[in-house]
Amino acid sequence: MDYFDFVVSEVHGLRIEELAKLRSAGKKVVGAFCIYAPEEIAYAADATMVGLCAGADFSVPNAEAVLPRNLCPLIKSFYGFKINRTCPYFQSSDLVVGETTCDGKKKVYELLNELVPTYVLEVPHKPDTAQGKAFWFKELEAFKTEMEKLTGNEITTKKLKEAIGLINNKRRALKRLSDLRAKSPSPISGLDGLLIDQISFMDDVKRFTAKVNELCDELDQRVRKGEGVASKDASRLMISGCPMAVPNWKVHSIAESVGASIVVEESCVGTRYFTDLVEPKGESLNDLLWAIDEKYSKIPCACFTPNQRRIESITQLSKQFNVDGVVYYTLQNCHDYNVEGVKVERALKAQDLPMLKIETDYTMGDSEQIKTRIQAFLEIIEEKR
Amino acid sequence: MDYFDFVVSEVHGLRIEELAKLRSAGKKVVGAFCIYAPEEIAYAADATMVGLCAGADFSVPNAEAVLPRNLCPLIKSFYGFKINRTCPYFQSSDLVVGETTCDGKKKVYELLNELVPTYVLEVPHKPDTAQGKAFWFKELEAFKTEMEKLTGNEITTKKLKEAIGLINNKRRALKRLSDLRAKSPSPISGLDGLLIDQISFMDDVKRFTAKVNELCDELDQRVRKGEGVASKDASRLMISGCPMAVPNWKVHSIAESVGASIVVEESCVGTRYFTDLVEPKGESLNDLLWAIDEKYSKIPCACFTPNQRRIESITQLSKQFNVDGVVYYTLQNCHDYNVEGVKVERALKAQDLPMLKIETDYTMGDSEQIKTRIQAFLEIIEEKR
Repeated sequence: MDYFDFVVSEVHGLRIEELAKLRSAGKKVVGAFCIYAPEEIAYAADATMVGLCAGADFSVPNAEAVLPRNLCPLIKSFYGFKINRTCPYFQSSDLVVGETTCDGKKKVYELLNELVPTYVLEVPHKPDTAQGKAFWFKELEAFKTEMEKLTGNEITTKKLKEAIGLINNKRRALKRLSDLRAKSPSPISGLDGLLIDQISFMDDVKRFTAKVNELCDELDQRVRKGEGVASKDASRLMISGCPMAVPNWKVHSIAESVGASIVVEESCVGTRYFTDLVEPKGESLNDLLWAIDEKYSKIPCACFTPNQRRIESITQLSKQFNVDGVVYYTLQNCHDYNVEGVKVERALKAQDLPMLKIETDYTMGDSEQIKTRIQAFLEIIEEKR
Repeated sequence: MDYFDFVVSEVHGLRIEELAKLRSAGKKVVGAFCIYAPEEIAYAADATMVGLCAGADFSVPNAEAVLPRNLCPLIKSFYGFKINRTCPYFQSSDLVVGETTCDGKKKVYELLNELVPTYVLEVPHKPDTAQGKAFWFKELEAFKTEMEKLTGNEITTKKLKEAIGLINNKRRALKRLSDLRAKSPSPISGLDGLLIDQISFMDDVKRFTAKVNELCDELDQRVRKGEGVASKDASRLMISGCPMAVPNWKVHSIAESVGASIVVEESCVGTRYFTDLVEPKGESLNDLLWAIDEKYSKIPCACFTPNQRRIESITQLSKQFNVDGVVYYTLQNCHDYNVEGVKVERALKAQDLPMLKIETDYTMGDSEQIKTRIQAFLEIIEEKR
């Protein structure tokens, strides 16, 4: 983990220097908040995509001077970061790529656009319809044009194919790491697993991919030796729900401090990002774009209606990771994940898997309460075993 | 107003009997919550469209047994009504037509569909793009097929043209009434104006249209005589924001009880519904559907991004209605209208028009607080004059 701990310690230092160097060499940096921002297309235009700051409480009060308080902390956090110019990734971005995955972000992007150029892609909300897929394809084409305009670089078939390969490799490495966490005992803590997923949105893609694979080589050894971080009989938990942006480590820290082992995050900062690859069925530019269309349409975001794919994914993951319970994590005022929790809870009940619903923000005011609730949840799990 | 007061008193009586008669004669009733449900297409299939119960607090606690509490009261209200079977319009509906205008409704429609067949139209959120309009056209075509399937009636060009005429006449009558409220003094109270807009979603279309026109004839007389309900120097207010479903009369009652005159609702239960007509540019079925596409795309719902048309509409209305101030009305946890309030406030400030933001639910717990705030707002307005 040394590399990743180093990256986090230098997340506002060396990496920002690298981005500054790229920019002084004429390259463009594109910031994003969501895994629907099509990285492959940005990289094909020789741009670099980075995740923007959205996980800290200290920027929220500044945002609340403008935005309503009854809004998701992630949204208030990023808007506050930009108002205060305290996120170096924001400050290094030539363009922000937004999307219409939720009402809150969608409307705040309008205000963000006053502070930094913000391009919004529309994600259709009824998945699997022919008109939805065709519409998303048009949005991808428009984004391709936008990236070409921003960078001055043409996105050729060759370039896009290379970018797809680059990002597929990153997704493969993260999937490999995730699969290792399915072992019993898990060879790495949930907190470290989360941290690596978070860094994947900030670090240089090639270097990051190599480092994740190196770590996996080490973890392979640990697995062979039966070494883990938590005790062999620690309760194995899945976290499912809203994304956790750096430095949002609240629930993981609390749960693992009381003896749980978090083995998988069914999250955008987690399985939703790396489960599927972009797999073109042909060699033309259109084939490549359609493959991107297909891959992104399969991300089981709660913005979709209905979103049966997510229920299926949670069921599959609960089996693959042999989890004893699920912590359903919702950021305050996130209607999509909050309401979808009703269906997830039912599906887990049918599998006789206990679920604990935590709705929280980035403050630490409810930490003790969350701790007590997780402890009680672990007791329920232990009684069931 | 006698007719409309009678309709409200019989809203759970005679009108429900009428719907029952229609149904026993083999006709279908379609329920809806949103002015994006394309009435013209439903009526062209000989179905009747009615607004469903969504404006009362008493059904909220039942909904909260299933749904998160941090959700808009309108959504909790309708879900509670259906759980309890206490809305006779729900109970009379063969199908509910939903739409993707907000996260909360979109996700709760999935749960509603377990209680009553619910068909969801996807409304594109970036207005005025060619791909958005084309997508919406496809959604309208799919809805046409759905209505034909439900009713067994083919939607012919002739039928659709007639239905467009029917609904255009209703919109014209409501616009005529609204324009009369622009006079000084307004010949009718805001509460009565709101009530009529609310009834427009429940009553028989032809009868309702005739009755609104009769009322307008009376009001024409009052205007000629300079008669009004409030004193000539009462402050003239616009209400702008979230829709108010029957029996949500909270803010109107409070504001008018302390001497304000509410002259216009920039709302879905208000100007957004009747400002534009469906105006076909040709005679073919496609021409008619495109005209519906165009009309609905122009509704300045806060679900759009960006939504400049709404800012322009508020500015235009504030002048036409000669308002002294705007009450910006948001239902709790409605991100779209809540965040858009930031831009609306700025636009009003640029016009030197005071704005009061009220975020509330259907309970009466904050009535005294709202009263005090409106009184203070009226004092500010009076000082400015």
